Amino acid sequence: MWVYEKKLQYPVRVGKCDPRMAKYLMEQYGGADGELAAALRYMNQRYTIPDKVIGVLNDISTEEFAHLEMIATMIFKLTKDATPDQLVEAGLGAHFVNHDSALYYENAAGVPWTATYIQAKGDPLADLYEDIAAEEKARATYQWLIDITDDVDLQDGLKFLREREVVHAQRFKEAVEIIKEDREYKKVY
Amino acid sequence: MWVYEKKLQYPVRVGKCDPRMAKYLMEQYGGADGELAAALRYMNQRYTIPDKVIGVLNDISTEEFAHLEMIATMIFKLTKDATPDQLVEAGLGAHFVNHDSALYYENAAGVPWTATYIQAKGDPLADLYEDIAAEEKARATYQWLIDITDDVDLQDGLKFLREREVVHAQRFKEAVEIIKEDREYKKVY
Amino acid sequence: MWVYEKKLQYPVRVGKCDPRMAKYLMEQYGGADGELAAALRYMNQRYTIPDKVIGVLNDISTEEFAHLEMIATMIFKLTKDATPDQLVEAGLGAHFVNHDSALYYENAAGVPWTATYIQAKGDPLADLYEDIAAEEKARATYQWLIDITDDVDLQDGLKFLREREVVHAQRFKEAVEIIKEDREYKKVY
Amino acid sequence: MWVYEKKLQYPVRVGKCDPRMAKYLMEQYGGADGELAAALRYMNQRYTIPDKVIGVLNDISTEEFAHLEMIATMIFKLTKDATPDQLVEAGLGAHFVNHDSALYYENAAGVPWTATYIQAKGDPLADLYEDIAAEEKARATYQWLIDITDDVDLQDGLKFLREREVVHAQRFKEAVEIIKEDREYKKVY
Amino acid sequence: MWVYEKKLQYPVRVGKCDPRMAKYLMEQYGGADGELAAALRYMNQRYTIPDKVIGVLNDISTEEFAHLEMIATMIFKLTKDATPDQLVEAGLGAHFVNHDSALYYENAAGVPWTATYIQAKGDPLADLYEDIAAEEKARATYQWLIDITDDVDLQDGLKFLREREVVHAQRFKEAVEIIKEDREYKKVY
Amino acid sequence: MWVYEKKLQYPVRVGKCDPRMAKYLMEQYGGADGELAAALRYMNQRYTIPDKVIGVLNDISTEEFAHLEMIATMIFKLTKDATPDQLVEAGLGAHFVNHDSALYYENAAGVPWTATYIQAKGDPLADLYEDIAAEEKARATYQWLIDITDDVDLQDGLKFLREREVVHAQRFKEAVEIIKEDREYKKVY
Repeated sequence: MWVYEKKLQYPVRVGKCDPRMAKYLMEQYGGADGELAAALRYMNQRYTIPDKVIGVLNDISTEEFAHLEMIATMIFKLTKDATPDQLVEAGLGAHFVNHDSALYYENAAGVPWTATYIQAKGDPLADLYEDIAAEEKARATYQWLIDITDDVDLQDGLKFLREREVVHAQRFKEAVEIIKEDREYKKVY
Repeated sequence: MWVYEKKLQYPVRVGKCDPRMAKYLMEQYGGADGELAAALRYMNQRYTIPDKVIGVLNDISTEEFAHLEMIATMIFKLTKDATPDQLVEAGLGAHFVNHDSALYYENAAGVPWTATYIQAKGDPLADLYEDIAAEEKARATYQWLIDITDDVDLQDGLKFLREREVVHAQRFKEAVEIIKEDREYKKVY
Repeated sequence: MWVYEKKLQYPVRVGKCDPRMAKYLMEQYGGADGELAAALRYMNQRYTIPDKVIGVLNDISTEEFAHLEMIATMIFKLTKDATPDQLVEAGLGAHFVNHDSALYYENAAGVPWTATYIQAKGDPLADLYEDIAAEEKARATYQWLIDITDDVDLQDGLKFLREREVVHAQRFKEAVEIIKEDREYKKVY
Repeated sequence: MWVYEKKLQYPVRVGKCDPRMAKYLMEQYGGADGELAAALRYMNQRYTIPDKVIGVLNDISTEEFAHLEMIATMIFKLTKDATPDQLVEAGLGAHFVNHDSALYYENAAGVPWTATYIQAKGDPLADLYEDIAAEEKARATYQWLIDITDDVDLQDGLKFLREREVVHAQRFKEAVEIIKEDREYKKVY
Repeated sequence: MWVYEKKLQYPVRVGKCDPRMAKYLMEQYGGADGELAAALRYMNQRYTIPDKVIGVLNDISTEEFAHLEMIATMIFKLTKDATPDQLVEAGLGAHFVNHDSALYYENAAGVPWTATYIQAKGDPLADLYEDIAAEEKARATYQWLIDITDDVDLQDGLKFLREREVVHAQRFKEAVEIIKEDREYKKVY
Repeated sequence: MWVYEKKLQYPVRVGKCDPRMAKYLMEQYGGADGELAAALRYMNQRYTIPDKVIGVLNDISTEEFAHLEMIATMIFKLTKDATPDQLVEAGLGAHFVNHDSALYYENAAGVPWTATYIQAKGDPLADLYEDIAAEEKARATYQWLIDITDDVDLQDGLKFLREREVVHAQRFKEAVEIIKEDREYKKVY
């Protein structure tokens, strides 16, 4: 089980009300390679992955929920002072008439999140490569987001998140080696 | 952010290996009214609900993740000693060839979870009625699950979860009253 | 069975050609809480709801189809004089290349309608809370739509529809009480 | 708008409680080529089809809702005396834990209905060929359903519905000719 | 099996960098009536269609993949010189943050391709009417696309593709006659 | 463009009519990690991947279509002598009433194929890790399929396909190294 702690993993600041950018950040809230997808993917795989790497999945899954909260906070801050007309103007009209300023698990185009974005095969190597790919894809998304904003406060948070994905990818690559060594070892004895 | 504590909210026991029942429990793992849907629905609404009821959403959301973990543990225990042939025989063949014994966010028919099961409108009363309905629907699902198993150990866990949904529904109904009173109060002064 | 009567439940007028507003109205045509979702939800629940409330579901379901027709008429009137270029300009380019000026059951973002928006549990209270929530959510959507148009003719039709949702929510709340009383009564004798 | 008349278009009888067959009939309730798809497809196209064929779409759409009601009645009669265990045994376990005995817009495999099954292009010939194809596909589904039941009462209702699809296909083919002649005529003068 | 030949079926030229038009062309890449849908629909039906028309399905399916490649090339050429800011400006922001300039099987609104757009019934006439409808719908989409661009180079390619759909529709109509004659013949002897 | 050659990449034999196994093979026809997903994923990425690895994507994509054809042939052979009753008995009843014996792009549970199973990010490393993961997941699926059949003829074809996935994964891993080296080289000069 989890215990909620009322703080963010890393401080979230935004330089200005910018609903257009909020729209694009939704990609990392409810998109194919976003934080929801990441958190749920690893949380789900914990039950059938070998014991030696359960900890990695558990740690990273829990951290991804903290990232999801950071993205939610960014979107909230970027839109909270916007009028309905400003939301419409920024391309958030379809979102507004359905959700007002509420968050929703959808990507930047408004497509609702689906579990078909993620996978669990029961095979440890297949699952870990799925996870490495997930982190590489999330890293790319953060890069595209950083590329289209000049809000340095927002960029700071996004760069932190991008770096975490790089670290996670590395940890999953190490987990692949652990599994492979373990198999070699078992073959020898 | 959340901190993981390595324990279950309530002990999960099962009386026997029963993959057929595991298949039906997936409804509460990745189905329309399951624990994933509940946890994500409330977590998402926290940002735009009035301050007075954020705590309710936060508490219940966090608890629903603990319930999701209980359901996952039940499914794992009901299937861990089953051979591939037993999984196929139990109606889990389609699940097996895609996921082996791994968990996946899908309902009992194998339909992947989708965010379209849940909603957030930004309107506090609409969101709270969405939440009440969610709890009433989850209660019903637990009832149908209890109706088709005679495993008393499993029933014990399912009854605990059903009761929690009743309690949550009650808390959301109280939250509706808090919002309404607040509006009345504001009209008076 | 149903008999078609060639008239609208309430007159639909629009003040001007406004394809941008037509796009947002699609939310109530083919969106999560739109009239199609409402009509189909209640029509479907009639078979397993207790006799005492079948009439309510039947009446409201039939009326929601009339509302769907009103929304369709609004969208048609708001777009019928628009050129392809005007549709593109108004954010309807993606709709145009797929459907020209035809209607389609999709929300304002262009996501096709899915039955996962609605539910039927067989449990009368769960189903009625589902219905109350649906009406509250539809009410909210109408509010957001009214908020972003200054076409008083269109607002008139939208306000009529919003009021009907309030009335329906009330009728479903009464139905909940009818079911509860019935259960109490059965317990006593 | 529509007026509900409390009668079926054609009497529905079933020879026995047969939940297995009810499961397969769901294909015509909420499947790709089922009655819901047909009714909604034609109802939606009425706004942009040429005046000369609006009546055909309107009539057939209204009739398809009556067919949907017949299918619903068949499913209800085939399952109403079944116990939960019998539903599970008949392959309806996944349906039961989600919906009890309630109906739901899903196909025989449990996949929820989606508007992506249908189309509206704004082009009259394209839309009418879409409709002809729809009727031919529904005819085929009725044939496959008739092939797997030996309940003569149920077959009687299914044969009536299959015949209606053949008639509808014919009417849509005539509508194609009306549109084509009209275009020729316009070219001449 | 297939062998790749490094050439396009018909030369693809575009007059200018035009990411806005690239967005709309995605409808024919990954939309309901696009080239992917066409190619996969016919390829899939080959196994159960009568021998006499397998060749038609095989030829047209293979050609549709060549069309898909032409559309991909058009989109690539229309966007390759665009900066991220230009993509955002052209309404491709949601696409950019998810896919950068990569292609993806989605329609112009960003809805991912789904097999529910296509059908296979095993009944030869139903399947061929499905195919005729598909070609008529694709023809309409090409018309709407031609209507909103004034790039004569691009129009040239789109007109070629539109004509091919007309030819394919004709061939499928002939196949319907072949099947019908065959059935008559079989009845006579 | 592609040219069709009327032969299979590898001979497909099956030992007996076995519709139950046909149902599970659908996972590799239209499932998340099946051959359709593989072929379309690589075909789509060719436009934005660096020149040095386009050939790898093109070759493997074309080969995956040949694999798709092999799977289709297996399913066809496993079901062609089955009666409707035998299909129903084998768990293919839902498939039969919708598609008769025709193939369809769905997984073993009957969920239609969706492009959300695959991804293209524009970032070469992210895309190649996506591809490695895809091959590892397909390898796992073939293993689960081999595990539940004792038809040695069918196993022979499945083992061939599993081996091809291992080879493809290796080629994608090499492509990762090529991209990385290229980046290093560019940094040096």
